[in-house]
Amino acid sequence: MENSGNHQDVIVPPVEGVAGGGTAYGWSETVARDPTLLKGTIDPTKVHSSELVHVWCMPSTANVGPQDMPRAFEPISLLAARNERESVQIAIRPKFSWAGSGIAGTVQVQCTDLCSTSGDRLVVGESLRMRRVVPVLGVPDALVPLEMPLTQLNLFPGETTAIWVSIDVPNAQPPGQYEGELIITATRDVAESTAQFLGKSERHQLYRELKNCLDVVEPIDGKSPDELVERVNSATSSLRRVLLSPPFSDLFSDNGLVDMMDEDAITNLSIRLKLNLTVWDFVLPATPSLPAVIGISDTVIEDRFGVEHGSSEWYEALDQHFKWLLEYKISPYFCRWGENMRVLTYTCPWPADHPKSDEYFSDPRLAAYAVPYSPVVSCGDTAKDYLQREVEILRTKNHWRKAYFYLWDEPLNIEHYEGIRNMAGDIHAYAPDARIMTTYYCGPSDSPLASNNFEAFLKVPEFLRPHTQIYCTSEWVIGNREDLAKDIIAEIQPENGEEWWTYVCMGPSDPHPNWHLGMRGTQHRAVMWRVWKEGGTGFLYWGANCYEKATAPSAEIRFRRGLPPGDGVLYYPGQVFSSSQEPVASLRLERLLSGLQDIEYFKLYASRFGRDESLHLLEKTGMYQGPERYTHEHMPIDVMRGTNLD
Amino acid sequence: MENSGNHQDVIVPPVEGVAGGGTAYGWSETVARDPTLLKGTIDPTKVHSSELVHVWCMPSTANVGPQDMPRAFEPISLLAARNERESVQIAIRPKFSWAGSGIAGTVQVQCTDLCSTSGDRLVVGESLRMRRVVPVLGVPDALVPLEMPLTQLNLFPGETTAIWVSIDVPNAQPPGQYEGELIITATRDVAESTAQFLGKSERHQLYRELKNCLDVVEPIDGKSPDELVERVNSATSSLRRVLLSPPFSDLFSDNGLVDMMDEDAITNLSIRLKLNLTVWDFVLPATPSLPAVIGISDTVIEDRFGVEHGSSEWYEALDQHFKWLLEYKISPYFCRWGENMRVLTYTCPWPADHPKSDEYFSDPRLAAYAVPYSPVVSCGDTAKDYLQREVEILRTKNHWRKAYFYLWDEPLNIEHYEGIRNMAGDIHAYAPDARIMTTYYCGPSDSPLASNNFEAFLKVPEFLRPHTQIYCTSEWVIGNREDLAKDIIAEIQPENGEEWWTYVCMGPSDPHPNWHLGMRGTQHRAVMWRVWKEGGTGFLYWGANCYEKATAPSAEIRFRRGLPPGDGVLYYPGQVFSSSQEPVASLRLERLLSGLQDIEYFKLYASRFGRDESLHLLEKTGMYQGPERYTHEHMPIDVMRGTNLD
Repeated sequence: MENSGNHQDVIVPPVEGVAGGGTAYGWSETVARDPTLLKGTIDPTKVHSSELVHVWCMPSTANVGPQDMPRAFEPISLLAARNERESVQIAIRPKFSWAGSGIAGTVQVQCTDLCSTSGDRLVVGESLRMRRVVPVLGVPDALVPLEMPLTQLNLFPGETTAIWVSIDVPNAQPPGQYEGELIITATRDVAESTAQFLGKSERHQLYRELKNCLDVVEPIDGKSPDELVERVNSATSSLRRVLLSPPFSDLFSDNGLVDMMDEDAITNLSIRLKLNLTVWDFVLPATPSLPAVIGISDTVIEDRFGVEHGSSEWYEALDQHFKWLLEYKISPYFCRWGENMRVLTYTCPWPADHPKSDEYFSDPRLAAYAVPYSPVVSCGDTAKDYLQREVEILRTKNHWRKAYFYLWDEPLNIEHYEGIRNMAGDIHAYAPDARIMTTYYCGPSDSPLASNNFEAFLKVPEFLRPHTQIYCTSEWVIGNREDLAKDIIAEIQPENGEEWWTYVCMGPSDPHPNWHLGMRGTQHRAVMWRVWKEGGTGFLYWGANCYEKATAPSAEIRFRRGLPPGDGVLYYPGQVFSSSQEPVASLRLERLLSGLQDIEYFKLYASRFGRDESLHLLEKTGMYQGPERYTHEHMPIDVMRGTNLD
Repeated sequence: MENSGNHQDVIVPPVEGVAGGGTAYGWSETVARDPTLLKGTIDPTKVHSSELVHVWCMPSTANVGPQDMPRAFEPISLLAARNERESVQIAIRPKFSWAGSGIAGTVQVQCTDLCSTSGDRLVVGESLRMRRVVPVLGVPDALVPLEMPLTQLNLFPGETTAIWVSIDVPNAQPPGQYEGELIITATRDVAESTAQFLGKSERHQLYRELKNCLDVVEPIDGKSPDELVERVNSATSSLRRVLLSPPFSDLFSDNGLVDMMDEDAITNLSIRLKLNLTVWDFVLPATPSLPAVIGISDTVIEDRFGVEHGSSEWYEALDQHFKWLLEYKISPYFCRWGENMRVLTYTCPWPADHPKSDEYFSDPRLAAYAVPYSPVVSCGDTAKDYLQREVEILRTKNHWRKAYFYLWDEPLNIEHYEGIRNMAGDIHAYAPDARIMTTYYCGPSDSPLASNNFEAFLKVPEFLRPHTQIYCTSEWVIGNREDLAKDIIAEIQPENGEEWWTYVCMGPSDPHPNWHLGMRGTQHRAVMWRVWKEGGTGFLYWGANCYEKATAPSAEIRFRRGLPPGDGVLYYPGQVFSSSQEPVASLRLERLLSGLQDIEYFKLYASRFGRDESLHLLEKTGMYQGPERYTHEHMPIDVMRGTNLD
C-alpha cells in the first residue's frame, strides 16, 4: 500500500484504462480478415486457421507456460551436428473459441519429413518427434509424446499450448540443408465429430432389424416358391428401409454414395510453418566426452511398478530404464540407500559373468559404469567372494577403464570416512587400478581437517588418498566463487589417475545453475557450461526418478518433502500421462542433454584453439561468465554453436 | 544464494530427502485397499472411485487452483436465509491416471435435489447449480455452467479441478433442514467409449454389404424358384456373417443379446457426499439495503457482439445483460465515455415513455437507476427537450426515489466541476429533488480548495453543493486510515438528502479489499464489509465487462493494459467457454453478491442490537477490523452468520 495513509501527497492514479472510451480500450484489437465468419458459431473448415489461433516459435531454452502471450512468428532455422539432438518449441494459443464444449477448439498438428535438396531425409517418427509440454506444479516440464505424423490437440480458452519438436540427426546423415513443414489446422472438435458415430443403442436397433430380415426368410427349405417370394419381398423391403435410415443417411450426397477417401487433414486453410535444419559436417562422439553419471532408484521402480527385487520383471524394468536413459548421453547407475548414506550402486543388474554385463558396459554411449561392492541380488556368495569375482572378471575387459565404485554418499564423520577406507581397501586388494568415487561437501565434522570449513573441505583428498580416485564435490560449496575451483583442482593429482568431478543436488539454488523446476531454461543448460568452465572431468546427479513412494505405475507424481521441486526427478512414468509405458522426459532432462552436447562443441573449439579460447568464447558470446552471470536468452547459444562452422 | 561464498561457515544442508531410503521417501505413501486393481490398466468400473480420486470441500472464499493439494473431507453444512444464495466448492484431484489419453481420467458428477424431512425440496437445475472453476491468467475465476443434474469432467494428472456448487433459496422456501447428495463416479474416458461407436468407414462398409444382400436377390420377379432359393441362400449367409461381424460383436454376452437398459451412472463404487443446508427463518429483502451500482460498457457489447447501437439486437443484448446482472443484487447502469471523462450513464436503454422503462425501474431487485442526461439513442429531440421529458415522466413515478444522475467520472479541474454544475443545474430546473451523483478522489487541481490534498478532497461537498447529492469517493483515498471516514461523513448533510457512497477501481491495491484477480476470497468479499463499517450508504463500481476490445463473441478475453488484472471485469462472455450465450460469472462477482448478502445480516443484527453492536460483532468474530485486518479464513463468516440465529 504505497499510497495508503499518505494524504499530504495523494498521487493521481493513472487514468489510462479507467476510461472505457480512452486509450486503454482497443489497444490491441483483434481484426479478423472477414469478421462475418467469426460471428455466432465459427466453422473452422471455412476460416483460415491463422484467424483462429496464434502460432509462434520458441527456443528450447524457453519455458512456455499456459499464460505465455503470443509473439511474432519467426522462421525456424536450426543447426545440428550428426549424432546430435536439436529441439525447438511451437506455441499455439486460441484467438477465438470455436468448439463450444469447455475447450476453445481442436487443432491438428502434422509434421513432414525433412528433405535435403539432394534427396536425403530425416524421417518423421524416427528422427522427428513431437511432444506436448505439460505443466507439473504449474511449470512446463513433462514432455508427453504425441502421435506422429498427425496429432490432435485440444486448446483451452486463454491458454497457450506448447509442442516440443525434436530432431535426432543420425550418425550417418549426409550434411546439408534440410527442409520440412509443420502444418497446423483448426478442426471441429471431437464431441462434434462423435455425432457421426453410431452408438450402442442404434447398433442394437440395427441388429434387431437385420436379424428380423433373416428370420422372415429362414428356413428356406420347406417353403413353397410363392411363400418364399412373399417373404423375400418383405425382407428386401425391410432391408431397403434400413439402408435409407438415419445410421446411413449421412453417407449420401445428391450424387449417391459419397467417396470414402480419407478426408485430408491438410487444407488450404492450414497454417504452414517451414522448418529449416542445417546438418553440419561434425559428428558428436559416440561416447560423451564428459561422463555424466546419474542415479536411478531401484527401490522406486520396485514400489511403483510392483516388480519384486531380483524377479525377471525387475530385470526387465531396470533394462528398460537403462536403455531409455542411455539415449540422453548419460551413464546411468542404479542405487539403493543403506544406513548412514551408504549406497549400493550398480550400472548393470546382472553379474559380470552374464552376457548382459558386456552388452551394457561395452555400449559406446556409456561413458562410465558403477560396479557394486556387494551382490545386488542375493546369490549365495559372501559379499567378499562376490566382489572378488566381479572385479576379477571386469578388470580383464577393455571397458574396465569406465568402471568406478561409488560406496558412500556424502560422508560426514570419521566413522563414514573409515567405512569408505575399508571398502576401498577391499576393492584395491583385488584391483589396484580400481577407481573409487566419493561425493562430499565437507570434511569429517568430528575431526576437523583444518581451522575453517572450506579449508577442511579442501583437505579431503589428502585425507582420503589413496582410497578415492574420483573426488566428486558439490557445486554448492563453490557458490559464486569460481576461483575456488582452482584451489580444489590444486589438491587433485591427475598424474596418479585422480579426477575432480562435481555434482548438484538440493543446492546450489537460484540463481545458480541447477535442475530445479521453475528455473530458467538457460539455468538448466548452464549446469554443464559451469562444469566446462570450472574444469571438472565428470559429473554426478543423485537421482532421476526419486519422486515420492507410490505403489501403482499411474499414481500421481509427488516430489519428496524437503526437496526443491524437481530435485531428483528428471523423468516421469509414462503411465501418468498416457497408456504408454515409455518414460516421459522432463524439459530439464532435455536441457541436460543439450548441455552435454554443448560440451562437445566447447571441446571441438578447444581442440582447434585451446581450452582458454573456448572459455573466452563462452565469455565473448555472453553465454556463460559465472554461476550468477549467464545468458537468459537463447541467442548466445546459437552464436556459440555457429562459431565452430567458421 | 544465502550460502554461497560464505566458506567460513558452510552450513550442512538438510539431508532429509536426499537419501532415497531415508525419511523423505514414502512419507505420504498412497496405500490402495486392493493394490492389484491399480496395476496395469485401471478399470474404473471395478474400483471404488475414492481409490482413484481425492475429493474434498472448500468454502466459497477459497481460491482453489490446479496446484491445490488434497485435504480431509469434511461434511458440507451450510446456512442460508430465504432469497439468499450460498455456495461451496468441491475439489477433485486424481490419485491415479486411468484414462490413458493425455487426461488422468473422467468423472461423472451428479447432484440430487435437497429435501427436507417435511418433504420440501430445493430442485436441482433450479435452486441447485454446479459450475466449473476455470482459471483466468492462471487464477481460478470463471464459473462455467455444468450440465445438471449429471455432468462429465476430465481430470488432468497432478491438477485439482474445482466445482462451484450454488444453492439459491427461493423467497417462499419453507425453513428447515435440507439434505441432498453429490455423487462422484470415476468412469471410462470418452476416447475409450467412442470405441463402442461405429465410425463412418465402418458404416460405409456395413452399408455396402447390406446393399449387396439386396442386389443378390433383387429383382425377384423373373427368377426361377431354384435360382431364387440359391440367391436367397447366398444373401442370408452374407447377412448372418454381417450380424456376427465386429460392429455388433460387443452386443453379445454368453447369454445372448445383452440388456440395453441405460447403464446407471451411479454405482456402489461412487463417492457420495452429503450436502446439508439449514434454511432459516429470515428473508433477505427483495430490494438490497445497499444500492450497488455497477457499470456495463455498451461500447464493449456493441463491438464484441456486433450489435449496432440502437438496433433491435442492441436492445436485446442490453436487456440480456441487465436481467442477468440483476440476479446478483446489483443495480446495473450502462455507460459510454465521452471527452474529459464525461460519462453517459443509463440503466434502461428505452426512453421513459416506453413500457420497458417501468418494467426496469419498478423491479424490486433494482435499488437505484441512472437516468441519462441526453438521448441514449438519437431520437430527433434536442438533449434539453429529451432531458425535460424524461424527468417529467419519471418524477411522477413511485420509483423516482431510486433515480440518480451520474454525469462525470472523477472531475479533476475547475472546467470539469463547471461541467457538472451546468448539467446538474439543467436537471434540477426540471426536478429540484433529482439526485446527482459525483465520483471523485480529489478537489480541482487548478484551484486548490485547501492547503493539502486530503483537506481539499474533504471540501468537495461544500464546493459542489447543491449540484451533487451523492458524494461518491474512492476507498483509495482513505487508505488504511478508517478514521478519515468520519471526516468525510462530517461534511455530508443527510438532513438535506445528501449521501456518502464509495467506490473501488484500480485502487486500493493489496492488501486492501478490492476485486482484482489473485486477491484472497475474503479480500473480495470484504469490499462490502468495509462499506458497512465505514458507514457509506451506497457503492459504485466502474465496469463489469470492461475487457479489451474484440469483434467476435468468442474472442479471447484480454484485460486492458494499465489496469490490474480483473479490474473492470466481473463476468465474461459465455461464448468464450462454451456454446452458451449466457454470461459466465467470475468468482469475484459471486463474492460481491455474498458481501451484499452479508450486509443484510449486519443490518438485521443492527436492527436488533444497534449499529455499534454490529461493528462489535465484525470485530469480535475477527471477520473485519479494518482494510488491513480482516479474516483470511472462512470460519468467522459462518460464525457471524450463525449469530443472528441465537
